[in-house]
Amino acid sequence: MINIKDYFESNRQAVNQYLEGLLKNIEKYPNELHDSMRYSLMAGGKRLRPILVIASAEAVGGTRENVLPFAAAIEMIHTYTLIHDDLPAIDDDELRRGKPTCHKTFGEATAILAGDALLTYAFEVMSNLSLMPDSSTDNVIKALNEVAKRVGVSGTIGGQMADILCEGVKGTIPMLEFIHTHKTGEMILASVLAGGILSGATDEELAALSTYAKNIGLAFQIVDDILDVEGESKVMGKNRGRDAVNDKLTYPSLMGLAESRHIASHLIDQGIKALAGFGDGGEILKDTAEYIIARSF
Amino acid sequence: MINIKDYFESNRQAVNQYLEGLLKNIEKYPNELHDSMRYSLMAGGKRLRPILVIASAEAVGGTRENVLPFAAAIEMIHTYTLIHDDLPAIDDDELRRGKPTCHKTFGEATAILAGDALLTYAFEVMSNLSLMPDSSTDNVIKALNEVAKRVGVSGTIGGQMADILCEGVKGTIPMLEFIHTHKTGEMILASVLAGGILSGATDEELAALSTYAKNIGLAFQIVDDILDVEGESKVMGKNRGRDAVNDKLTYPSLMGLAESRHIASHLIDQGIKALAGFGDGGEILKDTAEYIIARSF
Repeated sequence: MINIKDYFESNRQAVNQYLEGLLKNIEKYPNELHDSMRYSLMAGGKRLRPILVIASAEAVGGTRENVLPFAAAIEMIHTYTLIHDDLPAIDDDELRRGKPTCHKTFGEATAILAGDALLTYAFEVMSNLSLMPDSSTDNVIKALNEVAKRVGVSGTIGGQMADILCEGVKGTIPMLEFIHTHKTGEMILASVLAGGILSGATDEELAALSTYAKNIGLAFQIVDDILDVEGESKVMGKNRGRDAVNDKLTYPSLMGLAESRHIASHLIDQGIKALAGFGDGGEILKDTAEYIIARSF
Repeated sequence: MINIKDYFESNRQAVNQYLEGLLKNIEKYPNELHDSMRYSLMAGGKRLRPILVIASAEAVGGTRENVLPFAAAIEMIHTYTLIHDDLPAIDDDELRRGKPTCHKTFGEATAILAGDALLTYAFEVMSNLSLMPDSSTDNVIKALNEVAKRVGVSGTIGGQMADILCEGVKGTIPMLEFIHTHKTGEMILASVLAGGILSGATDEELAALSTYAKNIGLAFQIVDDILDVEGESKVMGKNRGRDAVNDKLTYPSLMGLAESRHIASHLIDQGIKALAGFGDGGEILKDTAEYIIARSF
């Protein structure tokens, strides 16, 4: 039995070390760009998405080492979305991962470019075949395509756009589901699928991973909404109550805290059910799902 | 003998038609995102970079059809850089390609996301193997990696950062060369190399294409600087004199118009020399180089 906290910690360290290596490989000049990328990337995130890449790879017989480039790339993509979302023109947030947001520290121009650079570097890393010796070229490009599709206009960015458009709007549950599944869910799905594809998962395994990811992805965002209402800013590393300030459409605002928690629990159960075929190999993914729901209590 | 104007026009049309097809393939909801991407992408650019992808492919025996996805993707990347550079926090420009800039029309939040979405969609297209049936998977991923590297922190974005940092600074020629080769040159190099790689160019051919691109890329930006001083806003589709307003480091500001023109001419000559090995196959690339310098007179 692997202790999930130890597993998280050891993988967090491996991801951080890998990210450090990637940062060392890029030009130091102009310093501002390099410094701002590092500032936001190494600000101590949970590394949930990279851990999902790794755990999914391991569930289908792959290795952490071989998927670390994609794990790191997806964390860079996640970080770029945070930097851009925090900008004054979008959510205008001042605190992220317990530190002033990128634009608060480096200015808006640099923050925009730091986000662009992290997104672009992610694709450079994912297309560097020499970093993924155990994957076929076909699987590398298939995984990269999957990630691009899910973090783009039909996924993460579309969700973010809908999120902005729905500020202050009397929303409906389908609108809210659209926002959450796109803004958060698609990147979690991309993480799980990338880990699987790179490790040669079968179509059946990918289908199971996909069901798992869709359920826990939505649950994760509902929990995030709950924490924004009642979490502690210090623990979250960002200010509480920002959703209310920005008049965001969220699960708690639409159906209350108790019902939101109930829905999240149900989604987690559904996610775990999808893992049945993996047997013991799915333990870590199961524990991760349980960790997500535990955050909300 | 192909008439270069006809060649440009027919390829511009092919690229525009291909871009239309790509836009049709993406989600219509949220409309704002789709509309803003289309607005900036189809605003009538010269399509110089896509034409360079195509001409380079043809110079080494490839076909236009097979490289259109990369040609279109690089135009999407170019457009995203324009949208983000025009933002109030960066160059604060109001006119682009003869129309109000993206943020002037759709607001800043949407413009930031439209840029992000175009960049991401470019990578989705470049990793869609079914669109490039004549290229090996290895060459597709090699070309994609080359593009990612050259439009990222060590290329286009690094150049843009340096450009911002050097505003109002008493610059030197090496600083200016850094900005121009990175900000503009690397994407032109990426275009030419992608066309070559996808078409199975030899290392020798790629080296020649690279020398050609480095020379014409720098010349192109110098000509752009010259046009900013003495071009007609109506023809350029953007306001003249913006470099002076933003106190940009440019060739004319550092060494005068006559000397800038002289340097650009010399670079074009060097670029054309590199094409010797292509014989008749290099005619279009040669004519393109001559078109670039002709813009400055």
